[in-house]
Amino acid sequence: MNYCFGVDIGGTTVKLGLFEFNGTIVDKWEIKTYTENEGAAILPDVAKSIASKMEEHQMKKEQILGIGVGVPAPVADGIVNGSANLGWKYKNVKAELEELTGIKVKVGNDANVAALGEMWKGGGQGNKDLIMVTLGTGVGGGIIVDGRILGGFHGAGGEIGHANICHEETAACNCGNSGCLEQYASATGIVRLAKKALAESSEDSVLRNTESIEAKDVLDAFKSGDALAVRVMDEVGEKLGGALGIFAAVVDPDAIVIGGGVSKAGQPLINLIEKHYKKYAFSLCKDTPIVIASLGNDAGIYGAAKMVL
Amino acid sequence: MNYCFGVDIGGTTVKLGLFEFNGTIVDKWEIKTYTENEGAAILPDVAKSIASKMEEHQMKKEQILGIGVGVPAPVADGIVNGSANLGWKYKNVKAELEELTGIKVKVGNDANVAALGEMWKGGGQGNKDLIMVTLGTGVGGGIIVDGRILGGFHGAGGEIGHANICHEETAACNCGNSGCLEQYASATGIVRLAKKALAESSEDSVLRNTESIEAKDVLDAFKSGDALAVRVMDEVGEKLGGALGIFAAVVDPDAIVIGGGVSKAGQPLINLIEKHYKKYAFSLCKDTPIVIASLGNDAGIYGAAKMVL
Repeated sequence: MNYCFGVDIGGTTVKLGLFEFNGTIVDKWEIKTYTENEGAAILPDVAKSIASKMEEHQMKKEQILGIGVGVPAPVADGIVNGSANLGWKYKNVKAELEELTGIKVKVGNDANVAALGEMWKGGGQGNKDLIMVTLGTGVGGGIIVDGRILGGFHGAGGEIGHANICHEETAACNCGNSGCLEQYASATGIVRLAKKALAESSEDSVLRNTESIEAKDVLDAFKSGDALAVRVMDEVGEKLGGALGIFAAVVDPDAIVIGGGVSKAGQPLINLIEKHYKKYAFSLCKDTPIVIASLGNDAGIYGAAKMVL
Repeated sequence: MNYCFGVDIGGTTVKLGLFEFNGTIVDKWEIKTYTENEGAAILPDVAKSIASKMEEHQMKKEQILGIGVGVPAPVADGIVNGSANLGWKYKNVKAELEELTGIKVKVGNDANVAALGEMWKGGGQGNKDLIMVTLGTGVGGGIIVDGRILGGFHGAGGEIGHANICHEETAACNCGNSGCLEQYASATGIVRLAKKALAESSEDSVLRNTESIEAKDVLDAFKSGDALAVRVMDEVGEKLGGALGIFAAVVDPDAIVIGGGVSKAGQPLINLIEKHYKKYAFSLCKDTPIVIASLGNDAGIYGAAKMVL
């Protein structure tokens, strides 16, 4: 039997999975991410964890087809040029981890890798061309074309959170620009828009009684029909649905997958996005299904494993 | 020696090219496109023309690696589902032309195929990830990812002329939506914006003395510093540069190629697009080169040939 490892390196924990070559998951565990000292311990820790897991399962190196790795940074040719979350500056992830393990390594951006996971075993199963949007603290994106990750020349393929969709915006995005999709459709963006709406009117809303509003509060209020929250979420839907319409005119995917914490709002959110998407999408793409991601935090290890299979 | 044919089927003429396997063009010619009777004669005419060219050059079928075909319609799996320009309804172009010629056929959308041609032998030479925008009567687009055409699930990959970039637009696009890139950046769009600007003010402009304004008039006036034309083209640049910024956040190409009649305006147009693109593009993509297409009307036959090589 042949196996592979899928590794999803995050700023707090590293998630790891051991897979059979057909995609059956054999084992799944986590280790802590130590970002001190420019994240120098991260790859050695991963290598050690993999070695001990191989010993535990009595596996030989020859049985391992490879190690797939997702990292929170743009990746080109296995190389990362700085990751704020991990403390890394320039790091040849592929070369270093291959040196440490003696096993073939493939590296991808975590959002791209998660998209591949959702295509393989999640919400986008059976599809070959996918747009995945992860609505979390920020907005991550992953594009799959013909079954493969669209990595891009600088490793910035699928960086759709920073698609600039509102030239009139005055608030600044983390990236330095103003008007990025992330400023509207992320959890942070939803809260920002809600606070703005509350400040701009004295309209009654359940959100006025909420201390330190979170995205979930806005989404719950939206689902319960709170007029102000409905208006806020309609702006989110307009911006996100419109942006997805543009992305679809570029990629023409067979499905659009919505993931991340915000996607826990479920079908009402999908309906909202769909309503706006249909207004703006090119005719041939209007009926492209919009679905919720189903692998949750495991999308990364599935996609990482798929990269080497 | 092995050869292949590149065929670019347009509404008025079919352009054909005979290529050596290394890309050297051996012969280039045109035949008329007969669109009568739902375009029934088009593929038989192409087959006859290829057969007589093979006879002329004393080539055997075994020497022909394939026939690449570009058509003005979305294409999926070699099949076209209607082309207004050619009169076609449903047509399995690949199967029909293979049947007629006994030679392997590959089919792509003409704008996508032109992008492949520019990557291979034109303005995008040496690149593997490309966004090509053709600014003609409409706005066509072609995306190359890792050296291959991004065709899309419905054959609508790269339909960036119908990316909806202005939700406030009230004028309708041919496609049925309102606010498509094509409504601003095509030759037609440029004339539309110029006429609108002329009607909205009484400002002096050389365009007031021009009978039936064409895009070239607006571009010439822009280049000569006519204030109204400069303002109109600045709006074009804002819309096109902004849209390219979004597309780059999806694809992260190593170059953006501008083709079509409007691109004859040359470097001043590129400078204008670049100015706006840099404002809106994601940091890693801000310096992506924007270049002019160089193959003109031959991009289609080059790209078609490249598909089968």
